[in-house]
Amino acid sequence: MSLTNASPEQAARAAKISSRTLATLSTDARNAALDAIHDALKDSKEIILAANSKDMEIAQKSAAGGELNPSIVKRLDLSRKGKFEDMLQGIRDVRELQDPVGRVDLRTELDNGLVLQRQTCPIGVLLIIFEARPEVIANIASLAIKSANAAILKGGKESTESFKAIATVISRALESSEVPNDSIQLVTTRDAVDPLLELSQYIDLVIPRGSNQLVSYCQKKAHMPVLGHADGLCHLYIHSDADKDMSVDVVVDSKTDYPAACNAVETLLVHEQALDTVLPSVASALMAKGVVLRCDLSSKAALSKHLANEQVLLLQDASDADYATEFLDLILAIRTIPSIDGNPSSAVDAAIDHINTHGSHHTDAILTSSKEVADRFCNAVDSACKFWNCSTRFCDGMRFGFGTEVGISTNKVHARGPVGLEGLMIHEYRLAGNGQTAAMYGASGGRKFTHKKLAV
Amino acid sequence: MSLTNASPEQAARAAKISSRTLATLSTDARNAALDAIHDALKDSKEIILAANSKDMEIAQKSAAGGELNPSIVKRLDLSRKGKFEDMLQGIRDVRELQDPVGRVDLRTELDNGLVLQRQTCPIGVLLIIFEARPEVIANIASLAIKSANAAILKGGKESTESFKAIATVISRALESSEVPNDSIQLVTTRDAVDPLLELSQYIDLVIPRGSNQLVSYCQKKAHMPVLGHADGLCHLYIHSDADKDMSVDVVVDSKTDYPAACNAVETLLVHEQALDTVLPSVASALMAKGVVLRCDLSSKAALSKHLANEQVLLLQDASDADYATEFLDLILAIRTIPSIDGNPSSAVDAAIDHINTHGSHHTDAILTSSKEVADRFCNAVDSACKFWNCSTRFCDGMRFGFGTEVGISTNKVHARGPVGLEGLMIHEYRLAGNGQTAAMYGASGGRKFTHKKLAV
Repeated sequence: MSLTNASPEQAARAAKISSRTLATLSTDARNAALDAIHDALKDSKEIILAANSKDMEIAQKSAAGGELNPSIVKRLDLSRKGKFEDMLQGIRDVRELQDPVGRVDLRTELDNGLVLQRQTCPIGVLLIIFEARPEVIANIASLAIKSANAAILKGGKESTESFKAIATVISRALESSEVPNDSIQLVTTRDAVDPLLELSQYIDLVIPRGSNQLVSYCQKKAHMPVLGHADGLCHLYIHSDADKDMSVDVVVDSKTDYPAACNAVETLLVHEQALDTVLPSVASALMAKGVVLRCDLSSKAALSKHLANEQVLLLQDASDADYATEFLDLILAIRTIPSIDGNPSSAVDAAIDHINTHGSHHTDAILTSSKEVADRFCNAVDSACKFWNCSTRFCDGMRFGFGTEVGISTNKVHARGPVGLEGLMIHEYRLAGNGQTAAMYGASGGRKFTHKKLAV
Repeated sequence: MSLTNASPEQAARAAKISSRTLATLSTDARNAALDAIHDALKDSKEIILAANSKDMEIAQKSAAGGELNPSIVKRLDLSRKGKFEDMLQGIRDVRELQDPVGRVDLRTELDNGLVLQRQTCPIGVLLIIFEARPEVIANIASLAIKSANAAILKGGKESTESFKAIATVISRALESSEVPNDSIQLVTTRDAVDPLLELSQYIDLVIPRGSNQLVSYCQKKAHMPVLGHADGLCHLYIHSDADKDMSVDVVVDSKTDYPAACNAVETLLVHEQALDTVLPSVASALMAKGVVLRCDLSSKAALSKHLANEQVLLLQDASDADYATEFLDLILAIRTIPSIDGNPSSAVDAAIDHINTHGSHHTDAILTSSKEVADRFCNAVDSACKFWNCSTRFCDGMRFGFGTEVGISTNKVHARGPVGLEGLMIHEYRLAGNGQTAAMYGASGGRKFTHKKLAV
């Protein structure tokens, strides 16, 4: 890992060059490098925690002076119980994943002795921009090496000392491995983000890890593709035939399990026939968990009939802006979906329209006992994840069984939804022959392609 | 198909809205629309050719006045023998392809009764920018409808009348189908390209079909991903052990089969041990086909010994710029690859370095009788297509057996190499449960994910 003083361009060029060597290394060579990093970090715990305490000291002062959000200080702290060990275990977990490189997913005989093969290969150079969490550096370095991608890491200024210490350890560990030292570049120069985002000749993909603002900024500025999502404005729709108890469980979990997560629900859509039957229990359970409800006129009127007076007093009126807001907090906007011509099954279309218009195409869910209605919803909602009768909180790489999560993408190309190691790969075509020319297959050449599918 | 007078923003918004309906249509409904388009175009051949002749008249005048390249006039002409019928057959061919929508490629039981499924779905709205060829409109409309993507078409001004006529016919044909009329938008307003390239809220992917300049322009300006390649600077490397006859066949085909194609070879790299054994026959055969050779000192010296005097007089000296030029013409740059320490198998690394530094990561090939050397080459060259002992001209969607070709991509994400219908798809995740919440699986909930792989 190259340290600290390279210019953005030097770092990116070095990463690009080393990426070609990295791409040719065996699974064993890459796994051995992960072992070396794991062991070196384990042995250097004290040095790293000492560096981290310097960052903490400055951060705590800034927080006390009101210049820094206390939640950043918390994320910065590597000495919290289990955090360092979790970081080490994360490296082991990535090491144990199946090698994503060189997986053949298509083999075709174009003609006798002319065989085409498509196989996965690393993308090349990743730029990872992240905020305070210092353990991310170990996680990202592991993912990059496992997937044979070079990576340029740009961290937040609050964790500079921790980054430097971890980077030094990783750098020394890589020296004993076949992975080129330049494969992982740490950039700590100030104002490096803008120039890095323009270096599309060296950098193939940007992965911002942090706030919505960071992601939006990268999406606007980057000259190369960006993997991620700026917003997670997720919806739950309670259809007329939704089960009451299931609705209570799923809505409460989707809102309160971790309100600051991108897969937490922000707007609840309720079919008008469920206003008096399902919504009161749901609302009551949410309020018991401290959730503030912002209601449209119909839902407020229904709840006012059914809830206790002290709860009714806490209901708020929803504004249009509430339906376009990712609260990331214990606040939920509620909107009533009317039956069209009294037909509940076409009402799902109004819910779909609301979601496609107001949502962020991340995760949207329906509660209904009808498979037909659920299919209609899943077919028409334009989101990465469409869930039926379960919590939006399941949108997650670990929960999906991917072993790791690079991020969640709302992109319409490459990777969408929770992204595992697969999202760090692209494919290449290899064609092996014995002297075949295109002219042999032209009108004059007379040979015909067989295009025979071969086993992979 | 909406015609002509919509603003770029109106067209894009209408396409986005209709894309959601299109995405829910059955295979049969989309195929029926393709049949309707085919039949309507067939019935309207005369009207369309009359419109095309108006474009031709203006274009021929411009060409006579030297304002327009005569090759554009040729491409514009729909009345050339077989061209209209080829256009009709192209629609039929696309119709017969397997439906790319809704293919399930992953199914996982997360827990009893909680099943995750990943399936293909359309990207959404495509922006296709193309130059003179009027038949492209029918081809693109077919690909879009088959893949359930809405498309905005922006053609070159030379073919305005042809486009309008074809668009009117397609529009009327769609009225009798379930495909929303707004799914295919033709934009003919002047200067529409720049505003379209900024409408990332409506447009998901840009596919430029035309000159390198057009592709470069889109890559620089677009706020959404661009599928394609700006350059096709392809290499062939003749290793020391390459078969002479095979080398002659493959190099001549790669250069002369269609010199203006992106997959034609532009630089020939020759191992120094092949300078006297293989290169003279290759050079002689190329020169017999009218190819101008631009040589470095060593290759020129070798050829000067072996070729006839009149051929030697035609040899040119290569400049550094020649190794960075996509000639698209009967010109070939030649460079000698020295043995490093006299070791021919490590010489392949110098060829790889040249290709990775000077190439456009499109298609690069090696001629060698050693599988080990070929593997080393294919592992280390950073290109979409790596060929061994066959012509670079095989890099093509039809030749690869994809049934159609949307384009060839040198992108590092989403789709790389020849792109078939698959490149117009992305995936979505669907999760179906019976009330599961994330909290059930937390430390307190106690349930564990099974992550059981299910058959697809």
